[in-house]
Amino acid sequence: MWIELTITRMKGFSRLTTIKDALNTFYETVHLERMPAETLRIISCLGRVLADDLTCPRDVPPFDRSAMDGYAVRAEDLYAASDTNPVVLALTETPSSIDSPPKETLNRGEAMKIATGAPIPVGASAVIMVEYTEETGPGKVEIHRPVTPGENVSARGEDVKAGQPILTAGSFLQPQDIGIMAALGLSEVSIVCRPRVAVLSNGNELVDVGIETVPGKIVDSNRPTILSLVKASGGEPVDLGITSDDRDLIAQKISRSLDSVDMVLVSGGTSVGEKDLLPGIVNSLGKPGVIVHGVAMRPGRPVALCALGLKPILLLPGFPVAAMMAYDVFAEPIMLKLMGARSRAHVRPTLRAAALRRVPSITGTRSFVRVLVMKKDGRTVFEPLRATGSGIISSMVRANGMLVIPENKEGVEEGEEAMITLLRPLEEDMMQ
Amino acid sequence: MWIELTITRMKGFSRLTTIKDALNTFYETVHLERMPAETLRIISCLGRVLADDLTCPRDVPPFDRSAMDGYAVRAEDLYAASDTNPVVLALTETPSSIDSPPKETLNRGEAMKIATGAPIPVGASAVIMVEYTEETGPGKVEIHRPVTPGENVSARGEDVKAGQPILTAGSFLQPQDIGIMAALGLSEVSIVCRPRVAVLSNGNELVDVGIETVPGKIVDSNRPTILSLVKASGGEPVDLGITSDDRDLIAQKISRSLDSVDMVLVSGGTSVGEKDLLPGIVNSLGKPGVIVHGVAMRPGRPVALCALGLKPILLLPGFPVAAMMAYDVFAEPIMLKLMGARSRAHVRPTLRAAALRRVPSITGTRSFVRVLVMKKDGRTVFEPLRATGSGIISSMVRANGMLVIPENKEGVEEGEEAMITLLRPLEEDMMQ
Repeated sequence: MWIELTITRMKGFSRLTTIKDALNTFYETVHLERMPAETLRIISCLGRVLADDLTCPRDVPPFDRSAMDGYAVRAEDLYAASDTNPVVLALTETPSSIDSPPKETLNRGEAMKIATGAPIPVGASAVIMVEYTEETGPGKVEIHRPVTPGENVSARGEDVKAGQPILTAGSFLQPQDIGIMAALGLSEVSIVCRPRVAVLSNGNELVDVGIETVPGKIVDSNRPTILSLVKASGGEPVDLGITSDDRDLIAQKISRSLDSVDMVLVSGGTSVGEKDLLPGIVNSLGKPGVIVHGVAMRPGRPVALCALGLKPILLLPGFPVAAMMAYDVFAEPIMLKLMGARSRAHVRPTLRAAALRRVPSITGTRSFVRVLVMKKDGRTVFEPLRATGSGIISSMVRANGMLVIPENKEGVEEGEEAMITLLRPLEEDMMQ
Repeated sequence: MWIELTITRMKGFSRLTTIKDALNTFYETVHLERMPAETLRIISCLGRVLADDLTCPRDVPPFDRSAMDGYAVRAEDLYAASDTNPVVLALTETPSSIDSPPKETLNRGEAMKIATGAPIPVGASAVIMVEYTEETGPGKVEIHRPVTPGENVSARGEDVKAGQPILTAGSFLQPQDIGIMAALGLSEVSIVCRPRVAVLSNGNELVDVGIETVPGKIVDSNRPTILSLVKASGGEPVDLGITSDDRDLIAQKISRSLDSVDMVLVSGGTSVGEKDLLPGIVNSLGKPGVIVHGVAMRPGRPVALCALGLKPILLLPGFPVAAMMAYDVFAEPIMLKLMGARSRAHVRPTLRAAALRRVPSITGTRSFVRVLVMKKDGRTVFEPLRATGSGIISSMVRANGMLVIPENKEGVEEGEEAMITLLRPLEEDMMQ
């Protein structure tokens, strides 16, 4: 379970937990409860997480209806119909339209004009498309093709039968889901509340964007990034601002926020060093405190998973790329668990590509390598970005893909194929 | 260019345009202008479209800084350092920390304690990680490894150099993009305004969700779906409600909305039949009116691409799946063009899978088939959903993938591999 680092003198993290063990240990220690649900009008539900399984309250469509504009007929009347031998049927007095359902029964030798979506009259077994017909005189229609029974008819319950499961609890709702809920007559549904996630940046050197920086000061880019990530994951970000390395101030900010938020993300101040205040502060605020500190991942090693009561507190590394990776590996999965979600909010595209050059990695550590995926001589290839220090936020912008090298693998060889997760579209996909 | 249908009697659409020709004809007729830009605080820019190319205003990082906690050293002092032969260096009086940059120059035989992110002192060429060192006495540090020049140093401009292009106009901004903009000191950027897209449903039979339906009435599921699609595509949906098949009322709703919206989507009333009012109404309202009516796609055939002045008016089919497909093929690409976007808002995952049974299609028509993708005996396979009429909205919810069969292909054979676009996650992806 523990990977002992065999470095002669390891004054840093003496033991690093694997990502999998870190998450398991966290979940075993903190028995997260799913967020409560709220009732929302369906039009407000796009991108939200469904709280309960949804079954169909009634048949859809509620009656047999026509799938085409044409004539409702008895299929057996037309079995011999063709261009050379058209069959002539008698038109019923009134047509079947959507807003005035048919009252007449269709008898042998009759045809009833019918609109798309209109109810099929009693006696009819199929609809012949208007394209294969001709009204040759008053009350008469000539049919040029046979139909099979059921043809161009949407049968009652064909779309969904009453009692049938439709959507599973934990689904992020998509436009078509909103549509089916409307079709089922559901004007409101039960939705998991968004977890409120507080985001705090820590560091004497940090200033807010828009403030002129002076030597020794740098702009806090982690907070805007992480606030945006929380939003993209389906949470409600709460901005706690920047704190200097002041123990009391940080402790106060975290403990006060706990009254109104469900989770706290702090970046910076988590390395093992003189200024690594955060783990100590969290431990001083309550139980269980720090659960895992130091994970066998690169970048992102100094991450700490903590909790105060049932509220997760994650200490993310200060370096931007490391913070993003730690968010991706720990913060988002924990948020999804809080939401009871069955997947991430957006399916991530992956593709297989061949390495243009060797990508080294350390055995026992999961490596996240920013890569550039491209087409070359008809093949899909990738190369790791050269500058990939964890402070190099531009690598996340220049890269269009992420290569994950698992713990049990030592690098990817030149020419070897690997799965790449796409961060940006490869090329224009405007026209299918 | 035109596909002549060879049906004996075609009272419906006499000619069907291919999807590609339909879009080209539309763009040649309507010279769309990109939406104007607005200036927004970067924290509000997630998922929005960048209006102008962004280049870096200054070097990032702005100075050489340490990538690790450790000691700034001259690499040449340590070339022989090892566990058995550690090199002892003299500690400088003050360390280099992020908020107090070093004032001293580092001389031969000296080491300066340095924090991650702190400026590298003049004279130093590398940083040795704290793990490979030991402070053996006051003012002394023992080093157990050599370093190469530049090791653990993030050089000035290594992340981004002043003047370097960073983000391209037309990109949908992601969390990491917000981060780099902050790192560059940009508190506001120029963002393309969201196109306002009016959504109208047409049909005597339609009632709003929440209203008790009576025989002959059905719930309007298209409007909630299309309003959600517009939002997901990056537009601002404007709900115009339901109209009955009343020429004057429809004309009034469309022409009034044009003062305040950039595009109009109407569903229903577009087939060639008695109640197909919409094309006539649009033509009566101005030029160019109907540009293309009837497209060689299935479902979605009755779609019409129109415009009044420079404002696109799309007439989508009334049947839900057909409406969604026509939205996907025409409405979203046109909206993306209005936004000057280089891709869709979300990259769509695709995968290769083998057909479990034959999927028929009509040559000359592009077919959109809802499929269920699954793993079976280690292979990725798919099968088309049985009920796939264009009125079958549940097929869009039950399906997890979409198979597109191009115009020049007649179906997909059993066992044949095809590319499937995923509509939902295949399995849980909570832990990477």
